[in-house]
Amino acid sequence: MSFAYQVTARDGAARRGRLNTAHGIIDTPAFMPVGTAATVKGMTIEEIEATGSQIILGNTYHLMLRPGAERIARLGGLHEFMAWPLPILTDSGGYQVMSLSDLREIAEDGVNFRSHLDGARLTLTPERAVEIQHLLDADISMVLDECTPFPASEEVAAESMRRSLRWAARCRKAFEPRPGYGLFGIVQGGVYPALRRESALGLIDIGFEGYAVGGLAVGEGQDIMFQVLEDTLPALPQDRPRYLMGVGKPADILGAVRRGVDMFDCVLPTRSGRTGQAFTRHGTLNMRNARHREDKTPMDTACPCPTCAKHSRAYIHHLFKANEMLGPILLTRHNLHYYQILMAELRAAIEGGSLGDYAEKFAAEQAPPAP
Amino acid sequence: MSFAYQVTARDGAARRGRLNTAHGIIDTPAFMPVGTAATVKGMTIEEIEATGSQIILGNTYHLMLRPGAERIARLGGLHEFMAWPLPILTDSGGYQVMSLSDLREIAEDGVNFRSHLDGARLTLTPERAVEIQHLLDADISMVLDECTPFPASEEVAAESMRRSLRWAARCRKAFEPRPGYGLFGIVQGGVYPALRRESALGLIDIGFEGYAVGGLAVGEGQDIMFQVLEDTLPALPQDRPRYLMGVGKPADILGAVRRGVDMFDCVLPTRSGRTGQAFTRHGTLNMRNARHREDKTPMDTACPCPTCAKHSRAYIHHLFKANEMLGPILLTRHNLHYYQILMAELRAAIEGGSLGDYAEKFAAEQAPPAP
Repeated sequence: MSFAYQVTARDGAARRGRLNTAHGIIDTPAFMPVGTAATVKGMTIEEIEATGSQIILGNTYHLMLRPGAERIARLGGLHEFMAWPLPILTDSGGYQVMSLSDLREIAEDGVNFRSHLDGARLTLTPERAVEIQHLLDADISMVLDECTPFPASEEVAAESMRRSLRWAARCRKAFEPRPGYGLFGIVQGGVYPALRRESALGLIDIGFEGYAVGGLAVGEGQDIMFQVLEDTLPALPQDRPRYLMGVGKPADILGAVRRGVDMFDCVLPTRSGRTGQAFTRHGTLNMRNARHREDKTPMDTACPCPTCAKHSRAYIHHLFKANEMLGPILLTRHNLHYYQILMAELRAAIEGGSLGDYAEKFAAEQAPPAP
Repeated sequence: MSFAYQVTARDGAARRGRLNTAHGIIDTPAFMPVGTAATVKGMTIEEIEATGSQIILGNTYHLMLRPGAERIARLGGLHEFMAWPLPILTDSGGYQVMSLSDLREIAEDGVNFRSHLDGARLTLTPERAVEIQHLLDADISMVLDECTPFPASEEVAAESMRRSLRWAARCRKAFEPRPGYGLFGIVQGGVYPALRRESALGLIDIGFEGYAVGGLAVGEGQDIMFQVLEDTLPALPQDRPRYLMGVGKPADILGAVRRGVDMFDCVLPTRSGRTGQAFTRHGTLNMRNARHREDKTPMDTACPCPTCAKHSRAYIHHLFKANEMLGPILLTRHNLHYYQILMAELRAAIEGGSLGDYAEKFAAEQAPPAP
């Protein structure tokens, strides 16, 4: 199967599309649950599939350290290793090298660092990042980029973005084309429109199967994030998927979809599921709050997920108070369903040309009820 | 539905039976997964049901402290609270009071203790133990007994057993008869045959819907445990279920079934599932062991459980090395399937009159392979 993206409907700048990969079709706009260490934390494969997720994300940094990319390759690749038959996108490892490893040092050739697990000295180059993702058998690989710190001066952001462009060219060269597999470039440039455009044009010049927007959701706030998207997305090719990395809250996703983003990943539904925060149609709930302790109603009465079908707020509250594993399990399952239902509704709204109405309804429902 | 037990087949002293309770039928010999705090740790209700479990055990001590028996009653009882529709047996709380609480003090009236959660001073009397289990809506309640320490002199064991008998009579009096609900007595008496018989006869004199054997699996070893069963079980009525509390390893269960036990509970499949020990037809496996790290085979090639159907030893090993929640989830699920398959095979062997052959085959398979 060829790696092909087709836009099937539009509503303003928003796009409804379909991406063909080696391991299956992804309907966009799509949300990718994060499966850092070859597992979406606390979820069985059956449960992830039941949420409607068509693709998950794996973290190259974690997997290269444990169990190791070569080992996963010997075990048949990441899909077979974790028994996930559908598409997988892997990041390049660059972001986690910068945020998790010790003694990192960036040079033109790549990043030198020490493993946070055992202190081993390692180097991640653009070529090795592509090789690792090939060993993992990722349907979608990401170029290694330098994550520009925020805030950064225009000079620092420019230098960093241009190094990322040079690395992107090396990744493109190292990537072995195979039907159904694709490599995505990553637009950087901080909050500077001219740099974002320079990055986008540089990447288009190299040519990728898709384009990500990186360096956002790092504390800049929703307004600036949306502004960067408005500055960046029009410069990207219409016939390639656009992926906003690490985003985000439901309202962030809605706003980004309206501006033309097709793919998202974020730890929020899974991490919040472990800490007790529920996403619902009517905003978030802290399930540790004592007000839930005798509440027989589900977290979201309109939610069709198996957690809300069976379990009360009182029970979820109890599980979190008692530090029982089942609390994170049930809440992660609900949150992932919430995110995938949101994406399905966004796709339907784009098809129906009603995304504006949907956004109004969404904002009204999420607002706290009048006192 | 009346609380009724019917023996449908025999093989030697072993019995195949069926127990009718308010929330459904239990095929015996039966294994009850332990659901301490209103959850079988790490398992969804769907997963527990899929293992074939027809009854689970709840711990009165934990539930009375958190979220509280009255609260669970207001929320519709334990079945509704945890969304488990099938039968539940609750222990009396006595064992955990002795093993978990602080400053416990046994008097004729009951046990005074401090909660291990918040230090609150509490008293558990026979009457309160029955009341709590009623509030929880347990299909099977257990009498409050004093857990005789092991080892104990005959004098200490006798005194303890006789207090338990007096408490059992108070529990019987406090228990409100309802169709489909039953109260079980607990035979104590340490390792002393005369005391065990005295306890059994005393309990029969009071009259219970079922009889448990308590005070075993406390370090006495399998030989003594089996000896106590042989001393005790013939004294119990043939038409009532017998429950061996807190047992055990697969070989313990097999030996106890052959001696006439009908019901079991044990934390082994769930606790081992969290620590990395797998039960298989060919003995136990430590999934943390490095020899599994590139092994593509399932934990048990003959196991039909969803873990073995999908996942390799290498993957389970990785999950435990990475401290991922999914490791305990997948392994607990497998272990519970293993236990329930064992029980189904024991029931079939009794029906077929082939329990002796089954026991031989079991022992041969569990033995380590010849070098």
